[in-house]
This record gives sequence, C-alpha cells and structure tokens, in this order.
Amino acid sequence: MKYCDMDRAQIGAAYTQLKSEYEEIKAQGMSLDISRGKPCTEQLNLSDGLLTALNGADDCKTEAGFDCRNYGLFEGVPEAHKMFSELLTIPSENILLGGSSSLTFMYDTLARAMLYGVCGSERPWCKEGKVKFICPVPGYDRHFRVTESLGIEMINVNMTPEGPDMDAVEEIVKDSMVKGIWCNPKYSNPDGITYSAETVRRLAKMKTAAPDFRIMWDNAYAVHDLYDKSDELIDIIAECCDAGHPDRVLCFYSTSKITYPGGGVALMAASENNLKQIKAIMGAQTINFDKLNQLRHVRFFKNAENIKAHMKKHAAIIAPKFALVKKRLSEGLGDLDIARWTNPNGGYFISFFAEKGCAKRIYALAKEAGLTLTTVGATYPYGYDPDDSNIRIAPTYPSLEDLDKAMKLFVICVKMATLEKYLNA
Amino acid sequence: MKYCDMDRAQIGAAYTQLKSEYEEIKAQGMSLDISRGKPCTEQLNLSDGLLTALNGADDCKTEAGFDCRNYGLFEGVPEAHKMFSELLTIPSENILLGGSSSLTFMYDTLARAMLYGVCGSERPWCKEGKVKFICPVPGYDRHFRVTESLGIEMINVNMTPEGPDMDAVEEIVKDSMVKGIWCNPKYSNPDGITYSAETVRRLAKMKTAAPDFRIMWDNAYAVHDLYDKSDELIDIIAECCDAGHPDRVLCFYSTSKITYPGGGVALMAASENNLKQIKAIMGAQTINFDKLNQLRHVRFFKNAENIKAHMKKHAAIIAPKFALVKKRLSEGLGDLDIARWTNPNGGYFISFFAEKGCAKRIYALAKEAGLTLTTVGATYPYGYDPDDSNIRIAPTYPSLEDLDKAMKLFVICVKMATLEKYLNA
Repeated sequence: MKYCDMDRAQIGAAYTQLKSEYEEIKAQGMSLDISRGKPCTEQLNLSDGLLTALNGADDCKTEAGFDCRNYGLFEGVPEAHKMFSELLTIPSENILLGGSSSLTFMYDTLARAMLYGVCGSERPWCKEGKVKFICPVPGYDRHFRVTESLGIEMINVNMTPEGPDMDAVEEIVKDSMVKGIWCNPKYSNPDGITYSAETVRRLAKMKTAAPDFRIMWDNAYAVHDLYDKSDELIDIIAECCDAGHPDRVLCFYSTSKITYPGGGVALMAASENNLKQIKAIMGAQTINFDKLNQLRHVRFFKNAENIKAHMKKHAAIIAPKFALVKKRLSEGLGDLDIARWTNPNGGYFISFFAEKGCAKRIYALAKEAGLTLTTVGATYPYGYDPDDSNIRIAPTYPSLEDLDKAMKLFVICVKMATLEKYLNA
Repeated sequence: MKYCDMDRAQIGAAYTQLKSEYEEIKAQGMSLDISRGKPCTEQLNLSDGLLTALNGADDCKTEAGFDCRNYGLFEGVPEAHKMFSELLTIPSENILLGGSSSLTFMYDTLARAMLYGVCGSERPWCKEGKVKFICPVPGYDRHFRVTESLGIEMINVNMTPEGPDMDAVEEIVKDSMVKGIWCNPKYSNPDGITYSAETVRRLAKMKTAAPDFRIMWDNAYAVHDLYDKSDELIDIIAECCDAGHPDRVLCFYSTSKITYPGGGVALMAASENNLKQIKAIMGAQTINFDKLNQLRHVRFFKNAENIKAHMKKHAAIIAPKFALVKKRLSEGLGDLDIARWTNPNGGYFISFFAEKGCAKRIYALAKEAGLTLTTVGATYPYGYDPDDSNIRIAPTYPSLEDLDKAMKLFVICVKMATLEKYLNA
C-alpha cells in the first residue's frame, strides 16, 4: 500500500512496526559506513603488482634512457603519456601528468586562475570582484569545497538525465562574472549520469559573456564501467575545437580508482594554449612530479588494453554491490512511491532522493543505529540541499554482507522518516 | 705572478697562451654540465632498496592497521612522522608530510598567503598591494622564481659568513609591506654557509612591521654533511617560540637528496596555529598525499639513525668531488688574487666569485667549449647579479674524470675573462 493512500491510523501502525524493527537493529550495535566512494580491499588487491613493478635501477629508465630517479621530466614520463593517451584517446601533447591527486590539479588550476587568470583572461580572477561558478546538483562535495575555499560564488543548476539543465546553464553564462562550470560528465557523482552528446555540444558551443570561461571536466570515471556496455561520452576537447573554443575545457583524470587512492597518478588534459600558460606557472611550483610512480604504472599495466581489462576486474567485484543496493531499495521501497534512485552503468554511487524534507532525518536515524551515510547537503554547494532530499549511497567499500545489513536498515530509516513527515503534517 | 702586477704586454702574452690551451680543449668537443645540484647515479643507487620496500598488501598497513593503499591519512603516515621527527628533532605534531616536492610546499605556502593570508594576517596578501620579500644573495634560483611568479617584489640582502646581513634585514623589516624572507640556513645554496646562532636568534627576535611576517626556512641540506664534523644550526622553531613569535617560521625539508629527486617525500614543519590554518585550506586541495611513498621510506630506512648512516654513504661519494673542485681552483687560481670561492662542510655547491663583470664572460667561454655552468644571475632575484661575479658550481653529478676536465677548462675561462677585462680597461 502506498503511504500516500494510508489514513492516519494506518500510518501510526506502520510506524510502530518499523520503530520496533529499527530498535532491534540498533540494539545489535552495528558500525557501518557507506558514505565515501572508496574502493574495497579486494579492489586494492588487484593492483598489488604495482608495488613491485620497479624492481631496480634498470626499471627506472625511460625508453629514451632518462633515469626517473633523478630530477627532470617536468611534463611526466613519455611512456605514461603514451599509455594514458591511448586509454583516454587524447593526443599525448595535450596531456600533463602530475602527482597522486587530480583534486590537487583541480584546486591548483582554480587557485592559479584566481592569482594569474587563465589564458585569455584580462586579469587575475581575484581582481575581478566576486567571480561565480556553475555547480550542477547534486554533485561532488570536493568540487564545491574547492570553489568555496577560493571564495568563488556557486550557482546551483539541476541535473537532468542528460546532464546539467542546459537551458539554465546557457542563461547563467550571460553573466560575465560566471567563469566556469564543474562537470563530472561520465557516471556523475552522485547520480551516475553520463552527459548526452547534445549536452556536451551545447557546453562546447554556448556563448559565454566571460571570454575566459572554463569547463572543469573531471572525468573521474572515464573507464569505470560496471557492465560490458559502457555509456558513451563524446569528446569534449574535439567539440570545443570544432566550436571555435579550443581553450574552454580543462580535463582531469586519475588512477585513484584504477590502482590506489593512496598513491595513484593524476592527469590533466587541455589545449596547447592552456598548457603553455599552466606549465609556465607550474614550473615555479615544482621541478618534477613523482616520475617513479608514473613509471610504476607503466611497468604494471604496459598498455591501455591492460588497464581496460583491469577495470573489468573492478566491475566484477563491485557490480554485485550495486545490484544488492538496487534490490534492497526496490524490494523495500519500490511500491511505496516515496523515493527514487538512480541506476548507473558505472562510477561509484547510487543517488537516492527521498521525499522533500526527509533526508536529514534519514541520516540521523541511520547514524543513531550505527550506519554512516554521506552527510546530507554534501552533494550541494555550501552543504545545503534546498529540498533536504538527496542521499549519496556509496556501495563499493563494505562487504556484500555488511552492505546488505546497511541497506535493510537504510530502507527502514527512509520509511520511518517519511511516515514521521506524514504524522507531523 | 698576480694579474694585477702584470703590465700590458705580460697580460697579452698570458692571454695568448691561455687562448691556445682553450682552443685545444674546445677542439675536443667536450659536453659537460655542472649547472644543477643533481645527485649522481652512484648516489641514486644507494636508495634502490626503496623501490621494493613495499612488497605486498601487508606492507601497506600502518602499525595502527590503516591501509595506506586507500584514501585517508591527510596528515601523512604516523610512522613517517615519527621517523622524520627524530631525524629533524621536531615534534611530530608540528610536521605535515606531503608529496614528492618541498618546492611545491613552498610555492603553495606563498600562493595560499596571497589568496588567504597566513594565520594572523588581516587580509590576503594579494589585497595588500605590492608585498615584498627579503632574498639573501646569492641564493636559490627556484626560491626567487616562486616569489617572482607570485608578483612579490624581491629585495636583495648580502650573505655574510654568518648568514644574511642582519643589520640590513632588521632595517628592511621596518617596512610593513615586507612579509618575509627566504632562508636556506644550513649549507646554503650556493655559498654553503650555515647561519650562526646569533643570526638565527636575530631572525627570531627582530621586530617586524608586518604582523604576519614569515621566515621561509628551506632546510634542504639539514642532514647533508660532507664530513664527520657537521655545521651546527640552532633550532629556529624553539628560538621563535622563546622570542614570542611562534608563528613566524615555516620550515621545509625533503628527501629529494636523501633518496630520489624523482620520487621523494616532502615535509613542512610549523607552529600549531600555522598548521591549523594551512591544513584547513590544504584540505580543499587534496584528500591525501602519496602515503605509499611515505610508507616506502619508512620501510626502507626504519629509523632516523639509518638515514644518518645513509647520508654518510652519500658523503663518501661526493666529498672527493668537492675536494677535486677546490684542488683545481686552488692550483689554478690560488696565487692570482682574481677570485674567491667557498669551502662548505655540506650541501651541494661551491660558490665562486670572479672579479666584477667577469661571470657572464666566463659562462660564455665555458659554454662555447662545451661546459654548461649555472646561468649567471640565476643566484640573484630577477636573474640579475649586480656585480656579474657569482657562479654556482655543482660538483655532485659528473664523474671525477669529467669534473676534472670541467674544472681545468673552468680555470682557463676564469683567467681569460679576467685578462680580457684588464685588456679592455
């Protein structure tokens, strides 16, 4: 029976029943966490060959004979360029290899924009007054933290099944103070949405009032398919070139969820003009990034094909977890018409939308019973979900057994919070 | 015979003789480089155990059981904290471990100061107008590049055998726009000077007009002694605390010249207030630095004592190179009274001072004959040595045989350039 069809007595009875199930679970003293998109131990184990991929001094030389133990090769190891160029189908000369964190590349990129501007800027962004950024919501909390930290004002734009609401985006970019947009275009965090070709083309083509508008294209899940069939994301670099805006997009990738989040390799890709400006400044920031770790990745994977095969092993571990979450949600909530959730083909998250005003209460109930969910609001700028509705579910880290327990509790919490809303109405 | 005692004919004859020696060497088609402070292959080989120090998943756990392959431990691996704390005699809670580059830590520190200010700042430095930094000269070109890149005006202060000329420094800091000073306090680059206790105390105690003045204490050669007897550098953190300026100093270290410049670990150390402000911002920049590389260093060295023993092996390789440089300089130029050079007890350089107006010519002559020296002016802000006198000699990278050839040529170039000056006088 749908909750909206229940009378007050039926709601009360249902709530009492749920409350007793909840107390029973709570009494078990659970301690589970589905808040962060962390790979599980089995996934990490897939890359353990990486640890010993450099066995001695001879392994540390590039094909050209450069000893990567020493200073130099600011732009990164050529073989790593080649391998990632093949994997991502981006020309090697448009790639810059970095340290272990793509988030650092992104933060540094906007910090540089504030201090120096980007190529094509008339002045540093910090001299422009209050610059603004478009944030598709729900989105990735760490993107929002970067922009907030740098004092950039954030403007919410809703996600649609095709990507950000482009009608809204095209309107907002008429403001010259709007300098960019955060995009997580494939298997978006948290919705798992892949931008449609139409969305990508509109982003590339749209007329922006700011001549130095930038798309921060965080393609974190570029090769992170759950199933054999991959969502198709068209090439934004090519689209921006075709549209006459070659410098508009800055792309970011990392191996954090390919090998190790504790020691991967970050990449960025951009036009020649962008890279020229970025490298000139970055050359003051470092002599070289960790080349040995770049080379370690080359020795371990050898080529792009092997990375793709490696990603299938990840999928084999985590796809059953996604399936379990969807099963529990569907069984527990499918008929009630009180929530919706996404069904991604890749990435790290399922995005759950409760009825308005229920998410914080769901979080609190889960927390009280020992289950940590992603903080409500984290998927929105300034930590504020105006609907108090979205909860990001990260199924990858717990075991199937723990995840099952967690999702059973989660379903109860969703029902309770919703019924409480009805009771208080 | 001293050049200054020669008459014009004697100068001409000496020059003709040198020129013919020079042409002979030039005809051999030499290609040598003593421009950068790079460890040589034998030095790099000392750390090859590092490559395989993590042999499998079990090696990746901290003592507390944290799996360093995954996200987390923003502040760094506790065991690495402990080891470096012992090595540098800095309390663990004052240390922040980073990625592979201390230069990045330094650049980021000043970039943050520009964008946010430091703890105690009234506003971001970029809102203050033209801020200034004191640069002891000669100094490290990459320090100067950081400050120049960020638009910070640089003020030269001469080095003395005790460190920077403190009378000058104390005068300059009366200007409230002077926000800091670069220091490379032990075995300074390029002079190899270690700051005296008096200098350190004056830096800690001096009254600065800027309340948010910072000492950028790049202790790159903290454990890089050439001989058994080490120069003594007193503890600036303690001195700043005693002087009532606990937040004044920010210290930087790295293992670039302990293990590998291509993949070491960087550290910074500062007061609680500084670290609190820095970490809050840095938390927007990264989730964690490369913990596996931190742990790799712990597994390889195990403790501070072993790092000290390791540094003696470095010294055994490079001390003979320093000796050779000094021998060639002394034999070739010792009696001529046309140059002076330093005699450091550690670090990576010998600093050479030709007669005024001769350094660029020496560089050009050497270059023409196939020897690359550090670019003249690089040891001064804006690449400009007002005396055109200083040349940094980096003896570590070449073999003894190559270094010998290089220094023989260098001596000839010095003599020729000086005689040319006399001939043109």
